Amino acid sequence: MYKQVTTTSSGSAEDSDSPPPFTIGIPLFEDVDALDVTGAHQVFFMLGSYNVATYLIGPKKGIPVTTLENMHIVPDYGYDDHPALDLVYVPGGYGDGFTRLYSTNKGPFYDFLKKACDSAKYICSVCTGALLLAQGGYLDGYNCTTHWAFKPALELFPNVLVAADWPRYVIDRNRITGAGISSTIDTAFAISAILVGEEVARETQLRIQYAPDPPYRSGDPSQAGPVTMQSVSNSIGTTEAYDVIRKSLQREGRISG
Amino acid sequence: MYKQVTTTSSGSAEDSDSPPPFTIGIPLFEDVDALDVTGAHQVFFMLGSYNVATYLIGPKKGIPVTTLENMHIVPDYGYDDHPALDLVYVPGGYGDGFTRLYSTNKGPFYDFLKKACDSAKYICSVCTGALLLAQGGYLDGYNCTTHWAFKPALELFPNVLVAADWPRYVIDRNRITGAGISSTIDTAFAISAILVGEEVARETQLRIQYAPDPPYRSGDPSQAGPVTMQSVSNSIGTTEAYDVIRKSLQREGRISG
Repeated sequence: MYKQVTTTSSGSAEDSDSPPPFTIGIPLFEDVDALDVTGAHQVFFMLGSYNVATYLIGPKKGIPVTTLENMHIVPDYGYDDHPALDLVYVPGGYGDGFTRLYSTNKGPFYDFLKKACDSAKYICSVCTGALLLAQGGYLDGYNCTTHWAFKPALELFPNVLVAADWPRYVIDRNRITGAGISSTIDTAFAISAILVGEEVARETQLRIQYAPDPPYRSGDPSQAGPVTMQSVSNSIGTTEAYDVIRKSLQREGRISG
Repeated sequence: MYKQVTTTSSGSAEDSDSPPPFTIGIPLFEDVDALDVTGAHQVFFMLGSYNVATYLIGPKKGIPVTTLENMHIVPDYGYDDHPALDLVYVPGGYGDGFTRLYSTNKGPFYDFLKKACDSAKYICSVCTGALLLAQGGYLDGYNCTTHWAFKPALELFPNVLVAADWPRYVIDRNRITGAGISSTIDTAFAISAILVGEEVARETQLRIQYAPDPPYRSGDPSQAGPVTMQSVSNSIGTTEAYDVIRKSLQREGRISG
């Protein structure tokens, strides 16, 4: 639990006598989902006055990363040059750049992930970010979840325990994994409650007026009608992800061919 | 209602024979709230295959804009150089840069807003973006809403009709205004349903797994407990916004001193 301190707008502690901040790192990569990143970043930012600092970490400091929505976000730090992280929050993505990332468990992103996860107190993801954590081996033996359409792909990892149905997030010891895209907000609130307590989480909820009221009940397979399910399932690339990961795991000898 | 066409990843139409896209512009400015922008951008992006193109428009094309969370987002276009807009979606903000913006109705942002709103079919906002639309005179005679804490400031504008209580969004003819920060998602869904129909909005809801389930009931004044309300109200800068806008309206002769 972190006490309230005066902070700068970046969420880092202003007073040099104050304890070092609790640091959260959100990696960026090509075709990352922007809302996966910013929904959680917004909630974590509100913890700035409780000495929680949140950083965006991209391949190279200062070089914009292009999201799947073709938005360009400038990372605060690079993969090989960032403050030590207490919590890693891996967002998901979609598209060719993201497919290349989950088709392997090697390269600069996984080097970053290994170093960050080796020292982090919490290892978290949202949406298809769970595929990256699973590739790195960080979900072996843990209950977890991911975007509803990518559960079959996550279930390919032989030691990963994928939760039944479509919970907004799953907490298993120090692994906290969120479901698809918009669940990043619920997941970040669950993390906030762990880090700074329920009352601060409630205050943040009021600050960002999080009293959601979707116009329809269509947000997961338990809600959506058959026509909607069919249309989205046909176009969302579930099969491609499944095939790419299956081949990757066979190639690495992690599952039998 | 826009029919489905093949699009590029930026959401613009690929086929030169296809009709010009329906264009949505989201202005960026110093201290803009990142989730206000990205929550709606995510939903609008999903309409790319229905020939809806969404652009981020900042003071200068390509020059990153710093959000209130100290995130840096690169705009697609500049205030004085962007495609004609069919829909303007003005996000809110918070902090010194944003205060300077709502303390007047003049300058490059309002020049952009005038030109954009003069030709747009829909004029929309979320959160404290309503203060900017009101400063520009675009909410005169319209029912609307804003972040719960800034309703008193919005009520200062003599011809703006601020809705009772805390609806997620208010639709009055071609003005669609959202409540605080996270309501950007609900607001964008309401806009999507108008632009492309309810079934596409339902599909988008399933794509982004928008079945929100906040850990607490604390998202607006009808939900939050008295301790939470007091703590947030004391720190959220409501009084500053009220005073700055009151002085601005007096100075301009829009209300009596």
